[in-house]
Amino acid sequence: MGVKIVGVGSFIPEFVRKNSDFLNHHFYTNQGEIFDDEPDLILKKFEKITGIEERRYVEDHLTVSDIAVLASKKAIADAKINPETLDYIIFAHNFGDVKSDSNQTDIVPSLAARVKHQLKIKNPDCSAYDMIFGCPGWVESCIHAKAFIEAGMAKNCLVIGAETLSRVVDPHDRDSMIYADGAGATVLSSTDEPGGIMAHATQSHTYQESNYIYFERSFNPSIEENTKYIKMHGRKIYNFALTHVPQAMKKCLDESGFEISQLKKIFIHQANEKMDEAIVSRFYQLYNFEKPDGVMPMSIKNLGNSSVATIPTLYDLYLRGEFGGNDFEAGDVIMFASVGAGMNINAIIYQY
Amino acid sequence: MGVKIVGVGSFIPEFVRKNSDFLNHHFYTNQGEIFDDEPDLILKKFEKITGIEERRYVEDHLTVSDIAVLASKKAIADAKINPETLDYIIFAHNFGDVKSDSNQTDIVPSLAARVKHQLKIKNPDCSAYDMIFGCPGWVESCIHAKAFIEAGMAKNCLVIGAETLSRVVDPHDRDSMIYADGAGATVLSSTDEPGGIMAHATQSHTYQESNYIYFERSFNPSIEENTKYIKMHGRKIYNFALTHVPQAMKKCLDESGFEISQLKKIFIHQANEKMDEAIVSRFYQLYNFEKPDGVMPMSIKNLGNSSVATIPTLYDLYLRGEFGGNDFEAGDVIMFASVGAGMNINAIIYQY
Repeated sequence: MGVKIVGVGSFIPEFVRKNSDFLNHHFYTNQGEIFDDEPDLILKKFEKITGIEERRYVEDHLTVSDIAVLASKKAIADAKINPETLDYIIFAHNFGDVKSDSNQTDIVPSLAARVKHQLKIKNPDCSAYDMIFGCPGWVESCIHAKAFIEAGMAKNCLVIGAETLSRVVDPHDRDSMIYADGAGATVLSSTDEPGGIMAHATQSHTYQESNYIYFERSFNPSIEENTKYIKMHGRKIYNFALTHVPQAMKKCLDESGFEISQLKKIFIHQANEKMDEAIVSRFYQLYNFEKPDGVMPMSIKNLGNSSVATIPTLYDLYLRGEFGGNDFEAGDVIMFASVGAGMNINAIIYQY
Repeated sequence: MGVKIVGVGSFIPEFVRKNSDFLNHHFYTNQGEIFDDEPDLILKKFEKITGIEERRYVEDHLTVSDIAVLASKKAIADAKINPETLDYIIFAHNFGDVKSDSNQTDIVPSLAARVKHQLKIKNPDCSAYDMIFGCPGWVESCIHAKAFIEAGMAKNCLVIGAETLSRVVDPHDRDSMIYADGAGATVLSSTDEPGGIMAHATQSHTYQESNYIYFERSFNPSIEENTKYIKMHGRKIYNFALTHVPQAMKKCLDESGFEISQLKKIFIHQANEKMDEAIVSRFYQLYNFEKPDGVMPMSIKNLGNSSVATIPTLYDLYLRGEFGGNDFEAGDVIMFASVGAGMNINAIIYQY
C-alpha cells in the first residue's frame, strides 16, 4: 500500500506589497540601534540576498483559517473526493489566527476544527488537529498522514500549510520583509498503485539551535508596548541550514533507493533564495554532481516566505503550469525539503 | 507488537487558589450584565456543580514549557530509559507559553522543541512537535504515538499534556474558576508483551459545535482592552458531552473486545464533577450496568481543570498511591476518555 497526493490547491492573497513599500520604514539592529545605511541601500541588499521583490499579504478581514479553507476547497475539488470521506484534517501553522486588530494568537478551537466547520463536513470520525513544527510543518504533516494510513487509521487526509506572517512582523526589523501570507492544501490518500511517498527524513535540532527563530519585542527601543513579533538569527540559520539540510536530503534520497540523477525536481521551502540555492548545490556536491539548471522551481521573488505554505503553494503553481507546464509522468521522482523554527528539517521523496 | 505506557510523571503547581479567593471578583453574564447574586452564593453554586474547591496556579516565573520539563523528567526517570533514545516528543497544549506579564501565546519555536532543549537531548532524529486538539490533546497524542510505532517510525515517544490556563482567564467570568494549571507526561514504547493500547476512538464535532469553547473579550463591558480570554458555552457543552461522549466510550470499549464488567478504572478528563459523573453513568447505562463505586478517580476537587494535563496528572497520582494504592495487575483493563474544544472526543482502552 502506498500514499499519494491526489489533490492540491492554494490561495495566494490579493494584496501585493513591493520592496519599495518599505522605503519609509526605520530599521533597527537587534541591538536597538538605527541602521546607518539609507533605506534604499538596505532594500537593495535585502533583494540581492533573499531574491524577494514583492510579497503577498491577506486583506484585513481574513485570518489564516479563512485562507486555508479557500485552498482546501480547491484541493478537495482537485482530488475529486467527497469531503465527508476525509479521515483527518491536519493543519500546520505557527501563529494561529491573528486578527488584523489584535496581537493575540487564537487557536481555541484549533484551526483544523475551524476549517472543518467552514467546509461543512459533518462526519464526526474526521479528526481535526493542528501541528506546530516551524516552517517544515506541511511536510511533517504529510509524514503524519502517511503514518495514519500505514497504521490503518486513515484512507484520506487533508493536509494544510497556511500562515499570515504579516500579522506578526516587526516593522522595524529588516527581516520582516522576508515574511508573507499564503495557504496550500493537499489531499493524501492510500493507494494500491506504485509510487507515492517513497522515503522521508525528519530532524529536530534543539540542543543549541532552538532559539534561532523566536518571538520577541520590536527592535525599536522607543516602542514601549509589550508585544512580540517573529524574529530570527539569520546568519546562524544560514550556517545551520548549509551544514545540516543537504545531509538530511541525502539521507532521505539514499533511503528511497533512487539515484541523484533520477531526481526531476526539488520543491524546497522558499526561505531565502541565496540560502536555498546554496543548500541544493551542496546536496548535489555530496554526490559529486552539478546542480542541474531548473531543478528547483522558485516562487520567492513574487510571493516571499509564507512559512508552512511555501511548498504546497509552489507545488500547486507548478502543477498548474506556472513554470512552463506540468511535465510529470508516471515514474518521475521529486523531492520536498524544508527547514525552519525548532530548528526542524525534513524531506520527502515522492514518485509519480 | 503493542504500545505500552512505560513511564509517567506530573508537576502540580505550588500556588493554591481557593474558591474564597474569588469572593471579591465582580462576575458578569455573557451579555455583559453583572450578576444579581451575592459572590458567596455564586461560589456555592459553582462548587456544587463543578466539585472544585481549589485549583493550582504556576508561579509568575514559570511557563507551560517549564512545567512540562519538570513532569517529563519524572516520566523519563520512571520509564528508566535514556532520553537520547526518544524518537518523538509530542506536546499537547492549547495556549502555548503565555508569560505572566503578557497576553500573547508564544509557540515559536514549538513547546516540544523547548522541552527537548531543556532536557538537553542531542539526538537530532528525535522529532519534537506540538499538537492542538483541545482538552483531549494528551489522549490524542498517545494515539499519534501508537500510529508512529505501528508504522515503524518510532519505538519510544514522550507524550506531554500541559497547560497554564491561569494566564488566559477572564476574572469577570464565573467559568474562569474552573481553570487550573498543570503538567503530565508519559513515555510510550513499543513492546512484545501482551496488553497496552487495545483500542481507541476519536471524534471531531465541528458542524454546529466548533465555537462551544472559544477565545473572546472579557464579560466586563467596561474593559476596553483588546485582550481575549478562554470562554465556554457551559450548558451547550454539558448537553453535547452527555449525548456524544458515552457513545464514543462504548464504541472504543466494544472495539477492544472487552466486557464492561472487566473495566477496572476510568480516568476521565477532569472537566466538571457533575458532568463527568453523568457521562460515566450514561456510559454504564448503555450496557444496562450501574456505575460501580470508585470506578472513576477524581482530582478536580483540589486541582481544578488543567485541560490536557488532567488525565496524565490524575493517572500519575493514582499510580503513586494517592487514591489508596496502585492496585493494577497484569490483565487489568482501564480507560482514558476526554472531551473538549473542537469539540473533540476521544477514548483509549488500555490493558496492563
